[in-house]
Amino acid sequence: MLTGVLIREATAADWPAIWPFFRAIVAAGDTYTYPRDMDEPTSREMWMLAPPSRTVVAVDGAGTVLGSAKMNANHMGAAAHIAGASFMVDPAHGGRGVGRALGEYAVDWARTTGFRAMQFNAVVETNTRAVALWQSLGFEIMTTLPEGFLHLAKGYVGLHIMYRRL
Amino acid sequence: MLTGVLIREATAADWPAIWPFFRAIVAAGDTYTYPRDMDEPTSREMWMLAPPSRTVVAVDGAGTVLGSAKMNANHMGAAAHIAGASFMVDPAHGGRGVGRALGEYAVDWARTTGFRAMQFNAVVETNTRAVALWQSLGFEIMTTLPEGFLHLAKGYVGLHIMYRRL
Repeated sequence: MLTGVLIREATAADWPAIWPFFRAIVAAGDTYTYPRDMDEPTSREMWMLAPPSRTVVAVDGAGTVLGSAKMNANHMGAAAHIAGASFMVDPAHGGRGVGRALGEYAVDWARTTGFRAMQFNAVVETNTRAVALWQSLGFEIMTTLPEGFLHLAKGYVGLHIMYRRL
Repeated sequence: MLTGVLIREATAADWPAIWPFFRAIVAAGDTYTYPRDMDEPTSREMWMLAPPSRTVVAVDGAGTVLGSAKMNANHMGAAAHIAGASFMVDPAHGGRGVGRALGEYAVDWARTTGFRAMQFNAVVETNTRAVALWQSLGFEIMTTLPEGFLHLAKGYVGLHIMYRRL
């Protein structure tokens, strides 16, 4: 866990701090499969999950929101033991280990909650920092869907499916 | 296409014919990741998709519903060019090529609609007939999530992710 970064449950009051970097990251078109112009109500509904799912924020000592993560079951029924998670770090606070702290938290949450594995459905292969981070947290690239992602700048690139047991 | 089998758009009036085999297939717990006891309103909402997605039925010359398929985008945004599809064949009408006819229809639909690929997120590895059918239609096992599916009779088995370009 990163010193000076606290991870706590997100509340409705955190959304106005999340939305600016959420919107910027989605609009950039290089990491997420959300529609680039997804509106605020839809974005809030996609991100701010109700229990038993979980949405958290990473905050610094002053309470500034540095990033956020959501965690949930990735499948239903007989595959409901596979968790999923998504992560957003405010680019203004990148490179400080916020993503790693959120990733470690998500893995711990999933394990503690009783999930047996965690699956990332769509990690853009050109997002090499994220890929390396997830690998360092024990995730494996299970496959790469060829031309799975239409990168705004680079055109069609591969989409990794990453997975780890818990 | 199987002689004597017509595939047409499903209407609300078809649901009562779909629901009995849908319920039986889901309750069997060996092929689908839907909750085994999923109730009828939820099942109908999951299966009977509105445009631009598509739900079809396979019917015989007498109008009997033999099976059904739903087709949709598997991802949003920059991966929205990857389609998905799900298939149910009434066990009473299995072994007649209904699944193949529905699969061919879904691939054609996706290609015609402008999708560039089709991805199946969760094909149970012990469902060998389905796996062989999708392979014969050009799908490849991209990876197998170990212990991804809790089979009602066999315990934890692998979950294939299958994919083909269009």
